[in-house]
Amino acid sequence: MSNMSKKLLIDVDCGVDDAQAIMIALAARNVQVLGITCVQGNTAVENVCKNVLRVLSVCGQLKIPVFKGASKPILGVPIDAGHFHGQDGLGDAPDPNAPGLELLQEEGAVQALVRIVNQHPGEVSLVATAPLTNLALAVRIDPTISQKLKELYIMGGNTESRGNTTTCAEFNFACDPEAAYIVLNDYLCPTYIACWEFTCRSKLPWEFCKDWLAQDTKKARFMSQIFKHSIDACKTKRIDTALVAGQGFIPCDAYALAAAIDDTFILESDELPVTVELSGTHTRGMMVVDTLDTLKKTHKATIMKKVDLEKFKQMLMDSLK
Amino acid sequence: MSNMSKKLLIDVDCGVDDAQAIMIALAARNVQVLGITCVQGNTAVENVCKNVLRVLSVCGQLKIPVFKGASKPILGVPIDAGHFHGQDGLGDAPDPNAPGLELLQEEGAVQALVRIVNQHPGEVSLVATAPLTNLALAVRIDPTISQKLKELYIMGGNTESRGNTTTCAEFNFACDPEAAYIVLNDYLCPTYIACWEFTCRSKLPWEFCKDWLAQDTKKARFMSQIFKHSIDACKTKRIDTALVAGQGFIPCDAYALAAAIDDTFILESDELPVTVELSGTHTRGMMVVDTLDTLKKTHKATIMKKVDLEKFKQMLMDSLK
Amino acid sequence: MSNMSKKLLIDVDCGVDDAQAIMIALAARNVQVLGITCVQGNTAVENVCKNVLRVLSVCGQLKIPVFKGASKPILGVPIDAGHFHGQDGLGDAPDPNAPGLELLQEEGAVQALVRIVNQHPGEVSLVATAPLTNLALAVRIDPTISQKLKELYIMGGNTESRGNTTTCAEFNFACDPEAAYIVLNDYLCPTYIACWEFTCRSKLPWEFCKDWLAQDTKKARFMSQIFKHSIDACKTKRIDTALVAGQGFIPCDAYALAAAIDDTFILESDELPVTVELSGTHTRGMMVVDTLDTLKKTHKATIMKKVDLEKFKQMLMDSLK
Amino acid sequence: MSNMSKKLLIDVDCGVDDAQAIMIALAARNVQVLGITCVQGNTAVENVCKNVLRVLSVCGQLKIPVFKGASKPILGVPIDAGHFHGQDGLGDAPDPNAPGLELLQEEGAVQALVRIVNQHPGEVSLVATAPLTNLALAVRIDPTISQKLKELYIMGGNTESRGNTTTCAEFNFACDPEAAYIVLNDYLCPTYIACWEFTCRSKLPWEFCKDWLAQDTKKARFMSQIFKHSIDACKTKRIDTALVAGQGFIPCDAYALAAAIDDTFILESDELPVTVELSGTHTRGMMVVDTLDTLKKTHKATIMKKVDLEKFKQMLMDSLK
Ligand SMILES: [Ca+2]
Ligand SMILES: [Ca+2]
Ligand SMILES: [Ca+2]
Ligand SMILES: [Ca+2]
Repeated sequence: MSNMSKKLLIDVDCGVDDAQAIMIALAARNVQVLGITCVQGNTAVENVCKNVLRVLSVCGQLKIPVFKGASKPILGVPIDAGHFHGQDGLGDAPDPNAPGLELLQEEGAVQALVRIVNQHPGEVSLVATAPLTNLALAVRIDPTISQKLKELYIMGGNTESRGNTTTCAEFNFACDPEAAYIVLNDYLCPTYIACWEFTCRSKLPWEFCKDWLAQDTKKARFMSQIFKHSIDACKTKRIDTALVAGQGFIPCDAYALAAAIDDTFILESDELPVTVELSGTHTRGMMVVDTLDTLKKTHKATIMKKVDLEKFKQMLMDSLK
Repeated sequence: MSNMSKKLLIDVDCGVDDAQAIMIALAARNVQVLGITCVQGNTAVENVCKNVLRVLSVCGQLKIPVFKGASKPILGVPIDAGHFHGQDGLGDAPDPNAPGLELLQEEGAVQALVRIVNQHPGEVSLVATAPLTNLALAVRIDPTISQKLKELYIMGGNTESRGNTTTCAEFNFACDPEAAYIVLNDYLCPTYIACWEFTCRSKLPWEFCKDWLAQDTKKARFMSQIFKHSIDACKTKRIDTALVAGQGFIPCDAYALAAAIDDTFILESDELPVTVELSGTHTRGMMVVDTLDTLKKTHKATIMKKVDLEKFKQMLMDSLK
Repeated sequence: MSNMSKKLLIDVDCGVDDAQAIMIALAARNVQVLGITCVQGNTAVENVCKNVLRVLSVCGQLKIPVFKGASKPILGVPIDAGHFHGQDGLGDAPDPNAPGLELLQEEGAVQALVRIVNQHPGEVSLVATAPLTNLALAVRIDPTISQKLKELYIMGGNTESRGNTTTCAEFNFACDPEAAYIVLNDYLCPTYIACWEFTCRSKLPWEFCKDWLAQDTKKARFMSQIFKHSIDACKTKRIDTALVAGQGFIPCDAYALAAAIDDTFILESDELPVTVELSGTHTRGMMVVDTLDTLKKTHKATIMKKVDLEKFKQMLMDSLK
Repeated sequence: MSNMSKKLLIDVDCGVDDAQAIMIALAARNVQVLGITCVQGNTAVENVCKNVLRVLSVCGQLKIPVFKGASKPILGVPIDAGHFHGQDGLGDAPDPNAPGLELLQEEGAVQALVRIVNQHPGEVSLVATAPLTNLALAVRIDPTISQKLKELYIMGGNTESRGNTTTCAEFNFACDPEAAYIVLNDYLCPTYIACWEFTCRSKLPWEFCKDWLAQDTKKARFMSQIFKHSIDACKTKRIDTALVAGQGFIPCDAYALAAAIDDTFILESDELPVTVELSGTHTRGMMVVDTLDTLKKTHKATIMKKVDLEKFKQMLMDSLK
């Protein structure tokens, strides 16, 4: 591994699109995954840990350390958001050979996050594709990590009040609004956000998905099995109405990861101050874009608007090879 | 006046775009303006009343009854929203010949609204281009008006959390969120809404505005005088950042009125349940579009998306002739 | 009726304690009841109207005008607060000879309230023993009544966050928090409040209640019938835990009315600024006593702390004679 | 130190009453202080650490480990609550011989809290006399500590909506409402709370304070110096109006600590479910006592109502000897 490789730390609630993101990272050249931290979200944190180990196992990368993190959001009350990715987060596909939780690190995810960032100041790209609970706890325990990070990539939030979980909130932010608030306000490193509406508008054709899964590899067969449940769910009315730009293959978490490993991936973006609504009846968990500069914040996030979809397809294809 | 004429009741906080809307109504054939009710918003309610009388005077229509309404929003606390249309709401242009407030009706606006709708059941088109305080009070005092109205046209609210007054709220809704909530939830007649983002995207070129004002008529000279302040304000950074689709002539209130007097004006729209956020820190007063049907409301509003701008230009030209 | 008589306007949601309050007023010397306005609360507004007519009928005072008011709270969403006083508000006791609603005035309660206060400037004592919806609407339609009232007596709210309906809110305020907010902030006349904790601590012995009802009169028999349901309800665990000072006869609304008709009734009180919490999860509708003067309000309410219970017993006894 | 000794962990924002609490613990027989964790509150966390070291130094107990904790509340926004105990938290009394921060442990307070509780399962009595940030973070990082604690003593919150910092909130809870919410909902061990109104009603005479400080010891001279600022502040109108039961010596934090070290200290208490209001305009941070059992919580807190003031005086006297 060369000195030029990007150092990634990935925080996941390992549903299917987290798995897709992780597999892109594992397949990428010049990328070193320092660790994967787990948090509840799509499923209970124990399932998340198991799912990550299954992905690493399929990819032959069980040497990457996996850490168990928060089992509850900051306030402690999980939302009832259904199980888009199945009860177990990976499509409830049977997996008799799944690795056991004894492969997890003893160290907790929050402590690991703090330690790793401190060990590589200015070098770590943190990719968060889950409720931001672990990140929020880490910055409260060690506020200095906010400046020691190289950059932060987030899948979550929304820009136009289009909710996919509650009326006005996206899943990752809706699961832990306080954590999202803390991260958007206290992480002062360069921050890139792949929001819900953006991912919807960056959908890929279902035909591409078919070709992608049809590759004759162990990884493609694994992905076909775990993805089936979500593909079916996408066709239901409940999910269809949430899709901002109509039907398509939308591997949400993978957009954030793709941006993290390729600096030329983002083609258009907005630089704007952002925060999170905590107290609204319909808007709790909604990302707030402060276009009018009402909040007088100095830190601005980079909100993705357009990305290189050809590169994205290539990354996805490579990830199952 | 033929039996076929549309019966309009107009509720205004008479800033310049309210004046533009009123003048379109007065110039329209087959439109009968039953009355104009006034409410605080762009300026104090006394100024609003005076402004309406000035518009009617310029148009030679002082026989139309004008009613003074609420001087405060429902909760009683006016927001500090600056004075886009000048202190007096009409550009602070001197008007030594302005009619006096003795021309106002004795009856209050809320009582008049209730009475007029009851006198013409199924016939009145109500056009609201101001904070919705009067409408909210009216439906609490007489809940039956909600079904006796023919239809309701509103300029206000937003669909994508783009605020022009607070971070996430549009002016008319931000001025009285409770009133907007009451109207969107208790008026069950067909309801058409011209939201902030829609009006921004339906802007007219400033060149058109120039030609419009250059007509050699008394009305055009009046409009030039009262509009000057707002035209200048549009060029400031504060207003410019609020414009969703860039610079242009955006006579907000006039879109709602145009839709009310011409059934073919709206070319594209969405039918969706809507409500208003009342308790958010950043989102209080934001219109909430319930795409996911989370609220299980049976009543849906018609949200304007595209209108016939050529017809709009013609209406505007005619209004100053 | 002498010139020296007190002019009372009573706003009720006629449960049993409203009936007790009305009957005290009707029995009092030197008191002129100008009208009774009705509002939803303990039961639907139509039931409230009927209940008031029944009380007036029993007392032979059907000449007092009764007005129908708001059928919903300000925001339009009634709370589900059970039916302490029975479904019909008066203990569901059969009453074949109840007067019909044709005896109601044509004029609405809000309009009547505005008119009557304007007809007797500086003379009317308004007693409100219900959700404050009518009062809130009235002051928005005519802000001048706030100064034209002689004084305002309210049963409602709490001082120590002890709720009897929600965790932290008293029934009348919980039913319409916005109305309570508007009244406490916009009525600037002398204001006296009988709060929940105060009424609990001013309980009368159940033995007194027994003697009171045992009087051999038509009124006492009527009261016995309508009161039975609530007396039984008081012994349930649900109500018992709400009682701040233990079991006893607590005719809540009657304390406010007694204070209105006898200036020597209040023995101890606090003069403090008050408002209402509108947005709390557990505290919506809670009365807020601004001991620290955080809100910098100039208007202070008189919060009753101790009253003359011997006088109170006498008023109650007289009311059923 | 015998096996029978109580193992105390103390979490402080070391103002003067925290110092008083610590000194009682240090003077108590059969009490082993396992560590002192610091958090921002009365002053910045660096000052808090320094203040604790100063107290330990005066008492000759610098061997007790001191840990630096959170520098911000959970949401990151400190309230502007003035500086009752002076800018430095200990009355701004000069102290040229104060120990340096190099005496602090390397380990963070949250990590230490988790470790120590795990090392002594079922044995640790945690006394929290500060904003509850450290405790909240600890239980999110290791949820098992909630059951491994022997018991938890808190100074904070209120029972009757009497605020001393905001209109309805007590200082420790107002400083970090989310932390208070997390602790009251997620710590399931026996929990004892010394609330604001209780401490006010358990005041000691200023005469006692005078005698207490007049002892001819190094500790008494230290206490006199650091206490002077707060004693003066108590006489100001701002503080006087906050005092629920009038003037007196109220060493708030010391009540919680006294209860922790002597099981016979509490004479009367209520067992009730409690939580914290997070979203109210006036009530954010207010403790909510669920008398009506609306929340259906199974865990109840012990709310102190009456304590043995003679024992308390003796503990205070002993602490300066
Ligand atoms: Ca995810
Ligand atoms: Ca307007
Ligand atoms: Ca009542
Ligand atoms: Ca303290």
